Amino acid sequence: MHCAAVLAAAQAAPLLRAQLLGTSRRAMATSLLRVPPPQELLRPLAVPDRLLLGPGPSNVPSRIRAAGGRQLLGHMHPETLQVMDEIKAGIQYAFQTQNPLTLALSGSGHCAMEAALLNLLEHGDTVLVAINGIWGQRAADIARRLGANVHELLKPPGECFTPRDIEQGLVQHKPLVLFITHGESSTGVLQPLEGLGELCHRHGCLLLVDAVASLGGAPIFMDQQEIDVLYSGSQKVLNAPPGSAPISFSERAREKMLRRKTKPPSFYLDMGWLANYWGCDGEPRSFFSLREGLAVLAELGLESSWERHRANCSRLCQGLRDLGLELFVKEERVRLPTITTVRVPEGYDWKDITAFLMDKHGMEISGGLGPTVGKVLRIGLMGCNSTSGNVERVLGALQDALRHCRRSRL
Amino acid sequence: MHCAAVLAAAQAAPLLRAQLLGTSRRAMATSLLRVPPPQELLRPLAVPDRLLLGPGPSNVPSRIRAAGGRQLLGHMHPETLQVMDEIKAGIQYAFQTQNPLTLALSGSGHCAMEAALLNLLEHGDTVLVAINGIWGQRAADIARRLGANVHELLKPPGECFTPRDIEQGLVQHKPLVLFITHGESSTGVLQPLEGLGELCHRHGCLLLVDAVASLGGAPIFMDQQEIDVLYSGSQKVLNAPPGSAPISFSERAREKMLRRKTKPPSFYLDMGWLANYWGCDGEPRSFFSLREGLAVLAELGLESSWERHRANCSRLCQGLRDLGLELFVKEERVRLPTITTVRVPEGYDWKDITAFLMDKHGMEISGGLGPTVGKVLRIGLMGCNSTSGNVERVLGALQDALRHCRRSRL
Repeated sequence: MHCAAVLAAAQAAPLLRAQLLGTSRRAMATSLLRVPPPQELLRPLAVPDRLLLGPGPSNVPSRIRAAGGRQLLGHMHPETLQVMDEIKAGIQYAFQTQNPLTLALSGSGHCAMEAALLNLLEHGDTVLVAINGIWGQRAADIARRLGANVHELLKPPGECFTPRDIEQGLVQHKPLVLFITHGESSTGVLQPLEGLGELCHRHGCLLLVDAVASLGGAPIFMDQQEIDVLYSGSQKVLNAPPGSAPISFSERAREKMLRRKTKPPSFYLDMGWLANYWGCDGEPRSFFSLREGLAVLAELGLESSWERHRANCSRLCQGLRDLGLELFVKEERVRLPTITTVRVPEGYDWKDITAFLMDKHGMEISGGLGPTVGKVLRIGLMGCNSTSGNVERVLGALQDALRHCRRSRL
Repeated sequence: MHCAAVLAAAQAAPLLRAQLLGTSRRAMATSLLRVPPPQELLRPLAVPDRLLLGPGPSNVPSRIRAAGGRQLLGHMHPETLQVMDEIKAGIQYAFQTQNPLTLALSGSGHCAMEAALLNLLEHGDTVLVAINGIWGQRAADIARRLGANVHELLKPPGECFTPRDIEQGLVQHKPLVLFITHGESSTGVLQPLEGLGELCHRHGCLLLVDAVASLGGAPIFMDQQEIDVLYSGSQKVLNAPPGSAPISFSERAREKMLRRKTKPPSFYLDMGWLANYWGCDGEPRSFFSLREGLAVLAELGLESSWERHRANCSRLCQGLRDLGLELFVKEERVRLPTITTVRVPEGYDWKDITAFLMDKHGMEISGGLGPTVGKVLRIGLMGCNSTSGNVERVLGALQDALRHCRRSRL
């Protein structure tokens, strides 16, 4: 049938046909499509509405969805440049920084981790990676790919690092960069950052912080806490679709990049070019969404956002305890207010519970990640999803699951 | 004012306050926001509608905009996996390939260029880059960043390579990979690919082709033409927003990647991980848009899409000649049907013309890029923008510009 279509098209297209006839016999043969149009693409797109209470992405409010549905603009149009200025100002507010080198990458938070490491590190540079979950492991993997001299500072999943832990690592390994995760989404730990920047700088080291899962949901102050590189994602508290990642570099970080002897192994993520004009390959549409996500945060105010996430997280934790469940992170002070980890109770399989919530309640929560696989359930309450109503919904659904998902002992 | 807000929030937030008081005096100081909410973010987002006839992005039809405005899904939901299968089938159709290793990256076409090079090349590998515009230059830059042994095959901007040019380069440099651009958007050249795959394979070389600006607008047959790696973008003929890039690897390319002794310098773009499960950092929203873009192409049919782009391009070229303008690409056979380059006429500045079209006609066309800066205007007619109506609109606007933008000779 598609061959017939080709012939029809060829008849309707003398020049195309001539073009094909003009070339070799082989070219003529190749003018017949071998792969027909896929039937599944000829059916309409079907997307159900779901409550996304996993570790992200979280639901996108209608205002931000509307921004995602706007017409594109060219990447050099004044309105686009204006939106980019607004995004820059919004990131500076969310990060609490005055850094001029503040922008959004066209990629996920994961992409921002790579951008931070490949711009800061050169082959042979020593980096110390604080690992208490999967994001530290990932950063160490990427740093090794970049040919860096990687040292690991280890803590069991569910625990956080003390300034003493960090100082010992700095003294022992003399790194140029320390990587640490503020919101460890695989374990639910919120890493205290107070004093770490001063500590690193006293030891001639830059502080690189991953705030993908925590930004807007827990206090962070890039300038006052002397953080040198900070990045996040768009699909967590900001409630924008994935695909644009806020990132900022301090003057110290900028100087290290200017001293590079070698180009970063990427052009796409080379800050030299991005800083000159970021978004050249144009992500205007997801920029619109990110702009709206940052606008919602600016209207709500950071403190109110932090407090809302803290309050709903503690309501959730209390409710989980009331169901007889055990929280994975013992110390309340270091619980991530955006993503709560709870141990899978005896006699249950986490897959049964997450499947039950999806099928019976149209609600996503997730299992563990990396070191917590099989051990925990992860409940995300981020941005517009952080409401007491959603706390009630997920607690009710879990109570229902505990009734129905117990495995008969064999 | 924002300090007052902090105090208010602190009063409304005993636990947050306690949390802050709980830490050092310094922490208390840092609890006061130094960066207030940016005023420009408190104003509503303003996005004018424009006709985008530059080299991309092109306008997004309402059906695809609607997909971009859909609610998110989790990246492991069955509906998301279904959409990803549909995208894979749609790319296999658009590329005319049966390659199992076919997927969409979470990034721009630029990002796909890096993914292709960093997965194929290892430090010290010899690569031959065919350069007749900016994309070859960019590929050579990236390959050098990756530590490859880069040789350049040069042609003047506006010309294309003959099989003889290629064979001489293969014999002289014995590369493992040849990079060539199918649609050179900086010059408007469509590179004939017939026979290049056989030629490369006879010389033990892989063929890597950039089809960002041409896919869907001009014939390409990945399997029959023996192309080993082919990639494109979503914001050109497919009319989806930027941020998801189709890419496919042949069995030969897969084998070279499996033989790697070193990991690629990126995790985000490591095909080993992406092939295992692509989209793990979740781009479901722009995936919806890409799915719709591929669906429109499947409904229209590749041959009709090629023929439509060819026909409107030749109407445009005729109209430009009738205005007394000179086409940059002499040979009609190698003119890119998606992006037409025309010389800036004597006595005019390209900036005056593009600004006039934007201000007076709400229409984007663009100036040159790389080797063609200042020399040409570039008019894009891609996907839904490739219509005879748009040909008339841009010709009328250019006629108007030629009347108003002539510079008085000094």
